[in-house]
Amino acid sequence: MGIRAGIVGISGFGGGEALRLIAAHPAFDLVYAAGEGSAGSRLVDRYPGVPARLAGLVIEKWDPDTLPELDLLFASLPTGTSAEALARVPPQVKIVDLGGDHRHVEGWTYGLADVWPDRISGQSRIANPGCFPAATLTALAPLLSGGLIAPDRIVIDAKTGISGAGRGGADTRFGYAETNENLQPYGLLRHVHMPEMAHTIEALSGGSAAGLVFTPHLVPMTRGVLVTIYCRGQASTDQCLTAAREFYADRPFVRVTDRPPQTKWASGSNLAFVSYAADPERDLVIAMGVVDNLGKGAAGHAVQNANLICGLPETAGLDGAPVWP
Amino acid sequence: MGIRAGIVGISGFGGGEALRLIAAHPAFDLVYAAGEGSAGSRLVDRYPGVPARLAGLVIEKWDPDTLPELDLLFASLPTGTSAEALARVPPQVKIVDLGGDHRHVEGWTYGLADVWPDRISGQSRIANPGCFPAATLTALAPLLSGGLIAPDRIVIDAKTGISGAGRGGADTRFGYAETNENLQPYGLLRHVHMPEMAHTIEALSGGSAAGLVFTPHLVPMTRGVLVTIYCRGQASTDQCLTAAREFYADRPFVRVTDRPPQTKWASGSNLAFVSYAADPERDLVIAMGVVDNLGKGAAGHAVQNANLICGLPETAGLDGAPVWP
Amino acid sequence: MGIRAGIVGISGFGGGEALRLIAAHPAFDLVYAAGEGSAGSRLVDRYPGVPARLAGLVIEKWDPDTLPELDLLFASLPTGTSAEALARVPPQVKIVDLGGDHRHVEGWTYGLADVWPDRISGQSRIANPGCFPAATLTALAPLLSGGLIAPDRIVIDAKTGISGAGRGGADTRFGYAETNENLQPYGLLRHVHMPEMAHTIEALSGGSAAGLVFTPHLVPMTRGVLVTIYCRGQASTDQCLTAAREFYADRPFVRVTDRPPQTKWASGSNLAFVSYAADPERDLVIAMGVVDNLGKGAAGHAVQNANLICGLPETAGLDGAPVWP
Amino acid sequence: MGIRAGIVGISGFGGGEALRLIAAHPAFDLVYAAGEGSAGSRLVDRYPGVPARLAGLVIEKWDPDTLPELDLLFASLPTGTSAEALARVPPQVKIVDLGGDHRHVEGWTYGLADVWPDRISGQSRIANPGCFPAATLTALAPLLSGGLIAPDRIVIDAKTGISGAGRGGADTRFGYAETNENLQPYGLLRHVHMPEMAHTIEALSGGSAAGLVFTPHLVPMTRGVLVTIYCRGQASTDQCLTAAREFYADRPFVRVTDRPPQTKWASGSNLAFVSYAADPERDLVIAMGVVDNLGKGAAGHAVQNANLICGLPETAGLDGAPVWP
Repeated sequence: MGIRAGIVGISGFGGGEALRLIAAHPAFDLVYAAGEGSAGSRLVDRYPGVPARLAGLVIEKWDPDTLPELDLLFASLPTGTSAEALARVPPQVKIVDLGGDHRHVEGWTYGLADVWPDRISGQSRIANPGCFPAATLTALAPLLSGGLIAPDRIVIDAKTGISGAGRGGADTRFGYAETNENLQPYGLLRHVHMPEMAHTIEALSGGSAAGLVFTPHLVPMTRGVLVTIYCRGQASTDQCLTAAREFYADRPFVRVTDRPPQTKWASGSNLAFVSYAADPERDLVIAMGVVDNLGKGAAGHAVQNANLICGLPETAGLDGAPVWP
Repeated sequence: MGIRAGIVGISGFGGGEALRLIAAHPAFDLVYAAGEGSAGSRLVDRYPGVPARLAGLVIEKWDPDTLPELDLLFASLPTGTSAEALARVPPQVKIVDLGGDHRHVEGWTYGLADVWPDRISGQSRIANPGCFPAATLTALAPLLSGGLIAPDRIVIDAKTGISGAGRGGADTRFGYAETNENLQPYGLLRHVHMPEMAHTIEALSGGSAAGLVFTPHLVPMTRGVLVTIYCRGQASTDQCLTAAREFYADRPFVRVTDRPPQTKWASGSNLAFVSYAADPERDLVIAMGVVDNLGKGAAGHAVQNANLICGLPETAGLDGAPVWP
Repeated sequence: MGIRAGIVGISGFGGGEALRLIAAHPAFDLVYAAGEGSAGSRLVDRYPGVPARLAGLVIEKWDPDTLPELDLLFASLPTGTSAEALARVPPQVKIVDLGGDHRHVEGWTYGLADVWPDRISGQSRIANPGCFPAATLTALAPLLSGGLIAPDRIVIDAKTGISGAGRGGADTRFGYAETNENLQPYGLLRHVHMPEMAHTIEALSGGSAAGLVFTPHLVPMTRGVLVTIYCRGQASTDQCLTAAREFYADRPFVRVTDRPPQTKWASGSNLAFVSYAADPERDLVIAMGVVDNLGKGAAGHAVQNANLICGLPETAGLDGAPVWP
Repeated sequence: MGIRAGIVGISGFGGGEALRLIAAHPAFDLVYAAGEGSAGSRLVDRYPGVPARLAGLVIEKWDPDTLPELDLLFASLPTGTSAEALARVPPQVKIVDLGGDHRHVEGWTYGLADVWPDRISGQSRIANPGCFPAATLTALAPLLSGGLIAPDRIVIDAKTGISGAGRGGADTRFGYAETNENLQPYGLLRHVHMPEMAHTIEALSGGSAAGLVFTPHLVPMTRGVLVTIYCRGQASTDQCLTAAREFYADRPFVRVTDRPPQTKWASGSNLAFVSYAADPERDLVIAMGVVDNLGKGAAGHAVQNANLICGLPETAGLDGAPVWP
C-alpha cells in the first residue's frame, strides 16, 4: 500500500490534472475524490479515459469531517472557499492547497518548489503558487537573487490560456464563440496575484520593496502561461542566462533556453522554461517564463510539492515529456 | 425615412448578426432593439463596434404590446419562447422569425429563399429555416426536384461551429476549454431539425415519403456549417452539378462548385456553396452544402427573406464578400 | 540495459510522439534517432522539453546501412519512401512501420493490436494501421465478427485534426490562417486508406466483399480522429454495445461508452472509444470510433505493437490517462 | 465608370482583404489583379465567394510596364520586393503601398490616416502603416501630442494573430499544428517596425528622441492585433481618456473605450479601439490599442487612404460593422 491520497475539487481543471498525474504516480494511491456538483457520480462519468482501476471510484460530497484515512490531500477549491474547511482536516493529513487561500498565511509554506525546495521538505501544509506567480517568480528568481535587476519597477505582461479562468459555463465571457479568435486584457492595475508576487520578490531581493505593474491577458488557447517581464538592470543577456543556468543547475524542471520560450513547449508537463534578452546600455532586462497553467501552474507543481513533503524523489510521477503538437 | 425595422433577441448570436446586416442595409432603419438580460443597456455596450449613429439606442425589455411604430420585426428568440408573444404583434408589422417556433405552422411561410422565392414575396409572416436545414435543403433541392436521388434513404452527416449552439455560458459544454480541440457528435437518431427537413424534402420530391438519418457534430470553430449527405441515386457527378447549375442559374446566393466546399468560403456572408460527387455504379450520390450558420443559416437568410417580403432587391444589404482568412 | 530502440522520421509528428512515449517507457532505451532535415541537430533543439538524459542525442541522417546496434526500430516515414530502405534493415532488428508502405504486404503483419494481438506477438515486421483505419476497424470489428452489420454498404464519414495531414509548411493548405475556423472535406470517392480498410473488413466478416464509402474531413484542431459510420443491420443499440463489451472484455485500451465519444477523451493517450446507435426498424446501425491520430492512430499503437513483439506487457509505457482539457 | 482600381499581391492576405473591400466599394471598380503564383487563374479560383461580376477576372503576372489604364493601385507585396517595380508605375496612377518599402521614404506620405488625414489628402504616393504601428501610434498619438507621456521610455508588448505573419506554408512555424495552442514571442530587441514607430513618435512629440522597447508575440488566432504599452507619465486615467476623446472627436474609425479593448471588437472592420489605465503616483500610463491586422492594420487603412487621396468621403466602403462572434 502506497501513500493514500485524496483530491477535493475533482471536477475542476486543477483537480482533473491532479487526477491524471496521481493516477500515473508510482507512490500515491488515489483513495478519495470529492467535489460539489459532481458528488455521487463515478470518476469515469467525469473522466471517460481514467484508468480502469479508478473508473468506479465514487466522487464524495466534500466534507472535511468525514474523510477516509488519508496521508495526503490535494485541495483545488475556488479561492475564498477553502480556509475554514481545510482547518478542520486532521493534522496528520498532509495538504497541498492549489487554491489561493493560504499563500503567505501563518502555518503554511509557500511552495515555490524549483526555487526553495529545502523550505518545503518536511512541512505538512503547502500553499501551491498560482500560475502567473509560478511563471514570473521562476523567471525572476535568478536575477533577483543575483542582484541583476531592480525590484522596484518590474512590468509583467502576462498571458494565459482560457483554462486559467476555470471551468467554462460559469460565465459567457468564457464561452467558445466569445473567446475564440479573441485576445483580452483584464484586471489592469489590480490583480489577485499581486501581493503573492510582491511578497516573494521582496524575499528574493533581500527585502527591498517591490514595485510591480501586472497586466494579465486572456489568450484563445486552452493551456499555457507566458510572462514577458520588463525590468531595469545592467546585466547582459549572457549574464542573465548564466545566472539562471547556475541558479537552476541541479533543478530538474527548469529549462533555461537561448531562444524565447513558447507555451506549447511545456504543454502537459511540469516544466518551466525561462529565457532572457537584455540591453545594458538601455538599463533593460527582459525576462520570459513559460509554464503549463495546469502543470507547473497548478497540479504538476502540487505533485512536486507533495513529493518533497512525503520524502519522495522530487520527479516521481512527473517525468513525462510535454505533449507536442 | 426607410423601412422601420426592429430586432428582438438582440444579444444572441442571431440577433447580433441581424444587427450587423441591418446596420449596413440601404433600406432598413433600425429603430427598435429588444432583449432579456441586455434590456436597459445601449447597443454600444453590447456591440462596441456598432456604427456611431446606432451606438446610443437603448435595448428595450421585449414586450409585443409596447412596440414602437414598426414595419418589420426580426425575431431571434430561443425555440419554444416566441409563439405566444409573436401572435400579439400587430398584423401590419411584417415578421421574420429566426427561431424554430413557426416552421410549417399555419399562417407562416417557410422561408427557403434560394429555392422558392416566389412563395415568400408578398407574405408577412416568414419562418426562417434553421442552419442545418438551410445547408441540407439547398444542396438537395436540385437533386430532389430532378428526381436524381431517392428521398427515402438520405444520410445527413452534419457539422456545425459552436455558435450554432447559442451563447456560451449557459452550459459548460460550450466553455472554451471544454470545446476547443474537441469534436463531438450529439443527438443521434433524434434532432429538432428532422421534421423541418423531412417536410420540405417530401415537398421537393413530389410527396414521396422522406427517410432521413441525421447526425449533428459540434466542431471547434465559431462559425460554419457543412453537411455531407449520402444518397441513393444513379446520376453521375456531372449530372448532379449540371442539375444544380440549372436549378440555381439565376439565384444570387448559391454557388455550385466542382471542388468540395469549405466552411470558411462562406464566413460572414449569405452565400451557400453546394457540390456533388457520385458513383452511379454504386447507386451513390454525395451532396455537400456549406453555409455560415449565422449568415444563410440565420440572419443573412432572414434579411434575404425580409427583402423579398418588402419588395426590395433580394440582394439588398447582402452583397458583401465572405471574410477570408 | 533495456531494449535498444531507434526512431527514424524523428522530426515528424508521428516520430515526435514516438519519442515522447519511448522516453517514458520502462523497457525501451532510445539509442538512435534519424531524420532528413533535422539531421545534425540535437533532440533538445527539436524538442525543448525532451528529458535531460536524451537532450544531447544527435539526430543522424537516415541510412539503413549505418545503423548502430538496435533491437527495435520505429519507422515514421512518408508513405512511398520507406519500402526499399526498410528492406535493408538487418533481420534481427524488429521494425514497427508507422508509414503506409507495408500494410498487407507479404512478410509484414498488420498490427491491429486491439483486435488480434495474438497475430502480432512473436512477429518482427509490423505494419502499423493508419489513423482512420485504427478508429474505423476498432469500431466495426465487434459488429463484423458478430455478423451484426452487412459489410457491403458501409458509409464512413471521417474527421481528423490537422496533424493528421503531417507537418505544416509543406503546403499552404495547412497554414494556420487557412485552416483555422475552416472545415474541409477532401479526397471524395478515393482515399489511400480504402484498400487497407476493405481488406481487414473482409477478413473480419469471414470473407464477404466489403463495399465502402469513405469521406475524410479536415477539422480545425490539432489532434483527434472521429469516424461516424453508417451501416446496414438489424441489431439494436444494446446488442451492439453488448457485442463490443464482450469483444473487448479483456482488452486494455478500448472503451465502449453509452454516450457518443468525443475526440478530446482520447487526447494524448493510446485509448480508443467506441459507441453505437441503432434503429433496427430502419435497418440502420451507426458506429462511432474516436482515437488520438498520433496515439492509437500512430505512435501509441506502434508502442503497443512493439510491446507485443518484444514480449512485454501490452500496456508498458502506455498507461497515461488522456490530457484534459 | 468609377475609379479604376487594381491590386497587386492579390493572393496574399492583405491583397485578399483589399479585394473584399474594393468589391463592396461604391466608387472603386476593380479592373486589374496581379500576383505571382496565382497568375493565370481567375479570381473565383482563389476566392470562391467573390462577387459574380468579378469571378472571371484573370489574375495577371505582375509587371508595372504592362498595366491597363488605372487610376489607383493597391500594392501588397512582401517588404523588399516593391521599390524598384513601383517606381515604374506611371505617375498618374495613385499608389497605396501596403508593404514596408516606402514608409518614411522621400516622395511618399506616411498614411497614418486617423491621426493626420490632412497630410494625406491630395497626395498620390501613400505608404500604408504596418499593423503594429497602426495600433501603437493610434493609441499613443493623443498622449504624445498632449505631452502626457515621455517618449524616451515606451515599452510596447505587442500581440498579433497568425495572419500577420503572411500566408502559411512558406514556413512550418506557421503550420496549424505548430501554432495552434501556442503563444510565441519573437524578434526581441529588434523588429522591422521599430524605425517606423520611432520616427512617428518623435514627430508627434515635437521632436524629442523616442526610446522604444518592442516585443511582438504570435497569438493562436487568425486576425487581430493588441498592443499593451507601458509609458512614463503623470496623467490620470480620466485625463488620458479625455485627451483621446478630444483628439479623435471627429474621426470616424477610432473608438475610445473605458474598458480594455478586445481584438474581436475590431474583427473584419477598419476600426481602432484605444483605452488607457494610469497610476500617476507610480509615474505610469498604460495605453492599449486594438485593430484587425488586415483591416486598420492593412487593407482597411489602405482603402481609407485611397478615399482621402481620391477626394472621396473617408468612410466610403468602410462602414461595415465588425463581425461578431
